[in-house]
Amino acid sequence: MFHNILENVRKKCPLIHNITNYVTVNDCANIVIACGASPIMADDKDEVTDITALCDGLNINIGTLNNGTVASMLIAGKKATELNHPVVLDPVGAGASKLRTDTAMKLLKEIKLTVIRGNISEIKALASGKGTTKGVDADTADKINEDNLDDVIAFAKAFAEDTRAIIAITGAIDIVADGKKAFCIRNGHPMMSSVTGTGCQLSAMTAAFVTANPDHPLEAAAAAVSAMGYAGEIAYNRLTEKDGNSTYRNYIIDAIYNMTPEMLEKGAKYEVR
Amino acid sequence: MFHNILENVRKKCPLIHNITNYVTVNDCANIVIACGASPIMADDKDEVTDITALCDGLNINIGTLNNGTVASMLIAGKKATELNHPVVLDPVGAGASKLRTDTAMKLLKEIKLTVIRGNISEIKALASGKGTTKGVDADTADKINEDNLDDVIAFAKAFAEDTRAIIAITGAIDIVADGKKAFCIRNGHPMMSSVTGTGCQLSAMTAAFVTANPDHPLEAAAAAVSAMGYAGEIAYNRLTEKDGNSTYRNYIIDAIYNMTPEMLEKGAKYEVR
Amino acid sequence: MFHNILENVRKKCPLIHNITNYVTVNDCANIVIACGASPIMADDKDEVTDITALCDGLNINIGTLNNGTVASMLIAGKKATELNHPVVLDPVGAGASKLRTDTAMKLLKEIKLTVIRGNISEIKALASGKGTTKGVDADTADKINEDNLDDVIAFAKAFAEDTRAIIAITGAIDIVADGKKAFCIRNGHPMMSSVTGTGCQLSAMTAAFVTANPDHPLEAAAAAVSAMGYAGEIAYNRLTEKDGNSTYRNYIIDAIYNMTPEMLEKGAKYEVR
Repeated sequence: MFHNILENVRKKCPLIHNITNYVTVNDCANIVIACGASPIMADDKDEVTDITALCDGLNINIGTLNNGTVASMLIAGKKATELNHPVVLDPVGAGASKLRTDTAMKLLKEIKLTVIRGNISEIKALASGKGTTKGVDADTADKINEDNLDDVIAFAKAFAEDTRAIIAITGAIDIVADGKKAFCIRNGHPMMSSVTGTGCQLSAMTAAFVTANPDHPLEAAAAAVSAMGYAGEIAYNRLTEKDGNSTYRNYIIDAIYNMTPEMLEKGAKYEVR
Repeated sequence: MFHNILENVRKKCPLIHNITNYVTVNDCANIVIACGASPIMADDKDEVTDITALCDGLNINIGTLNNGTVASMLIAGKKATELNHPVVLDPVGAGASKLRTDTAMKLLKEIKLTVIRGNISEIKALASGKGTTKGVDADTADKINEDNLDDVIAFAKAFAEDTRAIIAITGAIDIVADGKKAFCIRNGHPMMSSVTGTGCQLSAMTAAFVTANPDHPLEAAAAAVSAMGYAGEIAYNRLTEKDGNSTYRNYIIDAIYNMTPEMLEKGAKYEVR
Repeated sequence: MFHNILENVRKKCPLIHNITNYVTVNDCANIVIACGASPIMADDKDEVTDITALCDGLNINIGTLNNGTVASMLIAGKKATELNHPVVLDPVGAGASKLRTDTAMKLLKEIKLTVIRGNISEIKALASGKGTTKGVDADTADKINEDNLDDVIAFAKAFAEDTRAIIAITGAIDIVADGKKAFCIRNGHPMMSSVTGTGCQLSAMTAAFVTANPDHPLEAAAAAVSAMGYAGEIAYNRLTEKDGNSTYRNYIIDAIYNMTPEMLEKGAKYEVR
């Protein structure tokens, strides 16, 4: 199944409009290219309508939001909704400041979102309208493990039902759910949290995957999450003793670049619940 | 000829003011250093006059323009014109939004440009005042090949005559032309389009090359284009099976860092038409 | 001594709020993670109070300041002062434009700074209120060497006394001083100046080091400077003939990631004067 999904990204090469943060934007652009799609970054309110209309899908990331770009996110999101384009929201740091939580809530309310991708703390902040996020990382108390997995799956399904969006919660175990079905994904490596922006990169790539697979958004989002984790495994295996998080960053993107549909099909580790 | 041009960059170490996008800015800074020049990035309207005056050349890139930075581009460009500093314009995505096309047209009208560097779609958008740009990549219908090469050269020369700027159109074959003479450059590798910002990097490096060679702007621009393409070849040859576009990005900058004037002279593949 | 300082960073994993430039921000985030801390970047005036309050320390870098972010720097800095959080100021390019010099002076006046980290030209610009900075690099006339070392140490101590901040002046020899004591650090490699943002990265890492070691800010700042230089040495030794400044950039961050407290203790080269 994931085989066809990646193949469609490579075949269709969707153009993805990204309104994203300036911290990880370069890696986001390179990973979108690596997976077979084409990125454009644009965030001025006077051009986002044009750019969204030109593109096939939209990725909104609030990582370094400001008053100017929040307005642009809303304009672009509404245009994408109007055009029936897939929209991914990455609520980076929701719960860490009122501005972030409020912005994420407003985007959730005013835009038809296809996927919301965040760590458990960010998604909980969104679900409750407040948060205990530790900066841009998940709070320790929130971490997903085998003991609380059933609860997190139930939470993800309920929030998906509520928002009518696919909920992708990434962590040690990743959950990708709509209201009825959840993929539990066990790809990835703990060292991925040592690289800034692996979450942002995944959100950008998810936009490419769901855009190229409009009839299977849940499977496409799950495939993106699995591909990112699998790339983290492949990249980890290339590391030598002197390599650290910066080389790892490069190798993760390289692994996406070299990942064939067959490799993903074989390397994906998930169960459906 | 290209030998002396690179040597001058290394000897004079020109200081280049960059008003550029936040996607590829880090790579632009590192490649400017790699070629032997020194970069400074500054885009607030209250300081660009000072910074332009302090520098030797200016690179304007509209990749993630906004209303604030467009004003700064105009102020800096006019100051550079007044000081007779070389100015390079990279009209990223001209044709993709009205804001981009209009901004590029305004910069073209109000600033004395030394070089305009873009892909064929962007340059056509500028020449016609409208466009069919596919995001930030060239439209397939526009691609330069052996069949349409004569036409593209004639177009480049005419647009150079019209704007009194050197026109650098990069693609599978690169054209660098003034009103009378065109360099057709056949360096480069197709994988370069898998790295975000190779065009932006080239524009920043072109600003360094033309600034260090004020009496030979056409040759300097051609040398920069050739050096970038040659770096793409050298970098490609270093890649191993597991490397992808992220490692390639690093190796391209590395290749510029290690490129001697002799290497460039020998590796450059061009004809003058 | 440096042993314990790095150990504390790794143990406490302080959360560092960075208001920094968009050129080197990704490397800053990755090096903060590499040393064992956790970064968050946020610069909108409507959220910096929340973010500063959530964090343990603050790093202010004026590398691509604009009118919006300058306001945010002041708000965040005052909040940090109120909360008694360590604050590091990196006055990038002070002396290069009136806006930069004035902003740095204002931050110096209105915020309780723990460390000011810059090259000699930037620090002199700050001390005199005007400057001869060559862009973002130190002016040649200003370079620290064995002949002027005593003078620079005296200057650093006097300016530290005056500002009640630790002054970290980095160059061929690094000086880290409070009013009474100066560390002269001889780690590092000349090629580090070929990588954009090694100074910015150091400032971000310094914020992590002083935050995790509140009782020893001078030693913590010196340890950060030494660690950065030592990473430059380790990374240089990994380079092969074809590697250049881009690979070097990655290897420096990798070296911080892999640096144990024992390695730093042993590799640090300094004298106290």
